[in-house]
Amino acid sequence: MRTRAAVAVAPGKPLEIMEVNLEGPKKGEVLVEIKATGICHTDEFTLSGADPEGIFPSILGHEGAGVVIEVGEGVTTLKPGDHVIPLYTPECRECPSCLSRKTNLCTAIRSTQGQGLMPDGTTRFSMLDGTPIYHYMGCSTFANHTVLPEIALAKVDPSAPFDKICYIGCGVTTGIGAVLNTAKVEIGAKAVVFGLGGIGLNVIQGLKMAGADMIIGVDLNDSKKEWGEKFGMTHFVNPTKIEGSVVQHIVDMTKTPFDQIGGADYSFDCTGNVKVMRDALECTHRGWGVSVVIGVAAAGAEIQTRPFQLVTGRVWKGTAFGGARGRTDVPQIVDWYMQGKIEIDSMITHKLKLEDINKGFDLMHEGKSIRAVVEF
Amino acid sequence: MRTRAAVAVAPGKPLEIMEVNLEGPKKGEVLVEIKATGICHTDEFTLSGADPEGIFPSILGHEGAGVVIEVGEGVTTLKPGDHVIPLYTPECRECPSCLSRKTNLCTAIRSTQGQGLMPDGTTRFSMLDGTPIYHYMGCSTFANHTVLPEIALAKVDPSAPFDKICYIGCGVTTGIGAVLNTAKVEIGAKAVVFGLGGIGLNVIQGLKMAGADMIIGVDLNDSKKEWGEKFGMTHFVNPTKIEGSVVQHIVDMTKTPFDQIGGADYSFDCTGNVKVMRDALECTHRGWGVSVVIGVAAAGAEIQTRPFQLVTGRVWKGTAFGGARGRTDVPQIVDWYMQGKIEIDSMITHKLKLEDINKGFDLMHEGKSIRAVVEF
Ligand SMILES: [Zn+2]
Ligand SMILES: [Zn+2]
Ligand SMILES: [Zn+2]
Ligand SMILES: [Zn+2]
Repeated sequence: MRTRAAVAVAPGKPLEIMEVNLEGPKKGEVLVEIKATGICHTDEFTLSGADPEGIFPSILGHEGAGVVIEVGEGVTTLKPGDHVIPLYTPECRECPSCLSRKTNLCTAIRSTQGQGLMPDGTTRFSMLDGTPIYHYMGCSTFANHTVLPEIALAKVDPSAPFDKICYIGCGVTTGIGAVLNTAKVEIGAKAVVFGLGGIGLNVIQGLKMAGADMIIGVDLNDSKKEWGEKFGMTHFVNPTKIEGSVVQHIVDMTKTPFDQIGGADYSFDCTGNVKVMRDALECTHRGWGVSVVIGVAAAGAEIQTRPFQLVTGRVWKGTAFGGARGRTDVPQIVDWYMQGKIEIDSMITHKLKLEDINKGFDLMHEGKSIRAVVEF
Repeated sequence: MRTRAAVAVAPGKPLEIMEVNLEGPKKGEVLVEIKATGICHTDEFTLSGADPEGIFPSILGHEGAGVVIEVGEGVTTLKPGDHVIPLYTPECRECPSCLSRKTNLCTAIRSTQGQGLMPDGTTRFSMLDGTPIYHYMGCSTFANHTVLPEIALAKVDPSAPFDKICYIGCGVTTGIGAVLNTAKVEIGAKAVVFGLGGIGLNVIQGLKMAGADMIIGVDLNDSKKEWGEKFGMTHFVNPTKIEGSVVQHIVDMTKTPFDQIGGADYSFDCTGNVKVMRDALECTHRGWGVSVVIGVAAAGAEIQTRPFQLVTGRVWKGTAFGGARGRTDVPQIVDWYMQGKIEIDSMITHKLKLEDINKGFDLMHEGKSIRAVVEF
């Protein structure tokens, strides 16, 4: 069949909207009609050429929602008409990682996915002249139709609106999951969130769900204060507008009459800046502070600290897709949205047609959008 | 009163054996007759001058065992004749850290202890000419008698031999505790220990207690293989005698027919070398590997890695005094020793008189001792 897609033809170039060939689903695969897709910083990271693992030409996009059109041989858990969210972190439920009960990082199709291929080592997309087009993060949601492995699709409530729940395919789950699955924040905790973009706001709403007492947002841009407060932030810090270091400032803010040591119980880096990651670790509480790296760092960048920070009880960890198991946890997050337990609507600041997808990248560069969503 | 002590008169100089003045215990303090003390790398770190927080003149030593001679006003949990182990990490049971239930790093007397002083801001030791002599890590066990706060003494089984259980005051508890309290290793785990000195061997015996399946020891010195095996090590790696990197080597060793990703479930750095700390993190399993820093790094040295290591599920943490609460956990470790559940005797490779204490430092430099113990 043919479908319409925004193709990343080369690093640093705008996406090109074109008709492409799409082969039907092979064994274990599913053809999905994408109804809506968010534009995420990771797409922009790859499109810019900064991602050393970027492959071109490819169809980017990994934050979608849609409907199953056709299933390949052997597919048992999905049927045409099912509403689904594509998963860049699949959940096969039978690999060593899925069975470990310790991680969401399923490895069933990791190597082919990293090469822009379906599990059988080929692509389903091609140019009209036959040139193969690579898949991206196993999803390629910047196409009106796409093919995914069954294990990379979460079946969700069919009454949920595509243009909102597509955001659960990456940003919402990453932010909320970092709090609930990775940090396991408890009621009454004091937490700091560095970077109040889309991920940071979702970390904040995760912290509110978890019952944190203090939710400190840190951003260089004062306009993020209002955004943070909308989702439950209790304190705002602009590091350029305080005396001294942000670490000492947060340590002081979190002191109590009883506890004069100070420090956050939990911190989250949503910036991708390795210096900020260090601050995020070092502002946590001696003895038990946990710092979670969420942001994707520039290629080759390294985090650094004195080992004394760890020896005195701080823990440095990270999260991918919020530690969420896609097929198990994503449907639940959709239900939370439908129940009003989490908020998404106001974060979808822009709606675009596929033709205007490059405008979505511009809005991101200009810092004007929390999330721009393309509707097909 | 007067007592005999080995005094660190200046950085880089041998200890000097001399008579010193010792004031009796003040409020909340206890006078202890030290019966035996180990010589630890941390003593040597400070004596060498490499410790930026070293204070001179001082009485070093923090790995002792002895008998209560006299208690100061208000002391309720100890009486003359009790057998005790001094604690450089005290346990007050009423500070924010003790009450957090999340850390052993009691902060009740942290600031004065760091300055070589008793909690009231003065020293109990002085030269015969009146010059104050500073305390060390709140213990100063290189003296035949010393004064400690009540909260810095663990009351232990009076039938336990001083010349063995003194080692529980630091090395044994640090190694075993890192496994049981900090990493919480589970039965069947695969673990790696970098550095097979006194701490490393105790990590190994902790891993054996915890039921680890694979206990891989890493050391540059082949003679450590026999030592490791004595305590439960199942595999030995000398990084200078393998092809390629030690990280890849360990990843390969830990692969199974089912799990072709490989990596240790847990790793422990007992070297203090920040490059080794990085290897220790990076050889752990994607998704859930936990690496624990135990070794004390050189002043100013920093650990470094790509944040990708954390984002893909590895956890970097550290431990001080093995995460053990001194007054609660140390008596239990003494009981384990008395029950034969842990081994200490063979690790005490040298016994010295106080006059020969500098020989103990020489043996350490030459790599000839696991632990040298001074008996009074
Ligand atoms: Zn994303
Ligand atoms: Zn799997
Ligand atoms: Zn020690
Ligand atoms: Zn305390």
